[in-house]
Amino acid sequence: MAWNDTSTDLDGLSEQGFEVECGGRRVPGVYWAPAETNPNQLCLLGHLASGHKQAEYVTQLAHGLGEMGIASMAIDAPGHGERAVAAHPKGGYSSDLNALGRRFDEGGGTDGMVAEWKAALDFIESEFGNRATGYWGLQLGTMIGLPLAALDQRISVAVFGLMGNMGPNADDMMKHARSVQCPVRFIVQWDDKKVTRDVALELFDALATGRKTLHANPGSHSAVPTFEVISSVEYVARLLNADRPE
Amino acid sequence: MAWNDTSTDLDGLSEQGFEVECGGRRVPGVYWAPAETNPNQLCLLGHLASGHKQAEYVTQLAHGLGEMGIASMAIDAPGHGERAVAAHPKGGYSSDLNALGRRFDEGGGTDGMVAEWKAALDFIESEFGNRATGYWGLQLGTMIGLPLAALDQRISVAVFGLMGNMGPNADDMMKHARSVQCPVRFIVQWDDKKVTRDVALELFDALATGRKTLHANPGSHSAVPTFEVISSVEYVARLLNADRPE
Repeated sequence: MAWNDTSTDLDGLSEQGFEVECGGRRVPGVYWAPAETNPNQLCLLGHLASGHKQAEYVTQLAHGLGEMGIASMAIDAPGHGERAVAAHPKGGYSSDLNALGRRFDEGGGTDGMVAEWKAALDFIESEFGNRATGYWGLQLGTMIGLPLAALDQRISVAVFGLMGNMGPNADDMMKHARSVQCPVRFIVQWDDKKVTRDVALELFDALATGRKTLHANPGSHSAVPTFEVISSVEYVARLLNADRPE
Repeated sequence: MAWNDTSTDLDGLSEQGFEVECGGRRVPGVYWAPAETNPNQLCLLGHLASGHKQAEYVTQLAHGLGEMGIASMAIDAPGHGERAVAAHPKGGYSSDLNALGRRFDEGGGTDGMVAEWKAALDFIESEFGNRATGYWGLQLGTMIGLPLAALDQRISVAVFGLMGNMGPNADDMMKHARSVQCPVRFIVQWDDKKVTRDVALELFDALATGRKTLHANPGSHSAVPTFEVISSVEYVARLLNADRPE
């Protein structure tokens, strides 16, 4: 587990790469914080199946959080970003869920992917200490983040969505949803043909927490309104701050 | 159409009663504004079937809006508040939808109730001028307010909810929903036994506007979370301000 050599200053946000080892797999990650600060809150950012840890929207979220004084981090999911394999070029999206399933398996399945996030969070906490921690991730970010939130009590608030009772780890998601206790905002695209209403509502319903709110907007899978994204980041920030010890 | 004699100062909020005549019916209303100001925004407040124009939650909403510099107004629905008839004592709630339907009919049905709100808004505009206008009303407030928003283009943003394709004016609501063009936030209680998910989603789906967001929280009909109410008032305020001419 180590930092990369380089740290980049992105307009007041410091970005630094790192790598952790988990179950024999090398997992590359990136950590963002407002320059020269040590925030009291941290948000984990899960990328989409079409993305990677430094996809544009991930970096934008990191900037938005940074402006609110919140640190963030991301790792590449199995088969994505620096972990892309020949058959799945970097950042390439496959709508073939079986292919996604094979990449999951290469990453140790649901348990393996949860272990990777835990290892990354362990590393960041070893460097900066424990602090109020949230998770933000839609679609693939929910497929991995929802089991993580169920299994790692450090996650005190989560934004999920664009996912449902479907895909290669549907059974794992549904099982773990019944253990999620933290507050959740769940984003649904009402005309989503990839993740239909029915399966999305099944997953929302399965979440054990009593503090969950579904936000549904018209439009397709990829048309989440900007105001909804901004509102979701403000939600995470508000709850992480509420969680902050005096 | 006239003001009542008395104006009350409620902790910085001025409250004044008025009465308009509509189709031979006397319709009592109330107007709130931050004391000694003439706000640029106005929100119409529709009460619940269990309430009236000065029910506690209506007054609380008026205060919340007033603190944001927004005026508000409410009228008694047919059979409610000062318009209660012997069989339906003031503020008394009847879960008998047929009884509610009879009270609707006494008020001229959907068209008559829309005309009453239009007359009240006409009066307030004759006194204070035209300004950005929103509507906030759940349950009965949606049964009346949704047709109003469809038929009166002065309504530029609305909060609806706790209602669906059901009740004495279900057909009218579904018909008028297909003409609603303003942005709408639609609040659903996910375990509502009075207004089930299915009928609520049918009404949400029927809304013509592309700017509509459904917010669903766990719990019964009467358990709308406080944070959701506050957020809905902030939503109205934000959109009324966005609508304000420079």
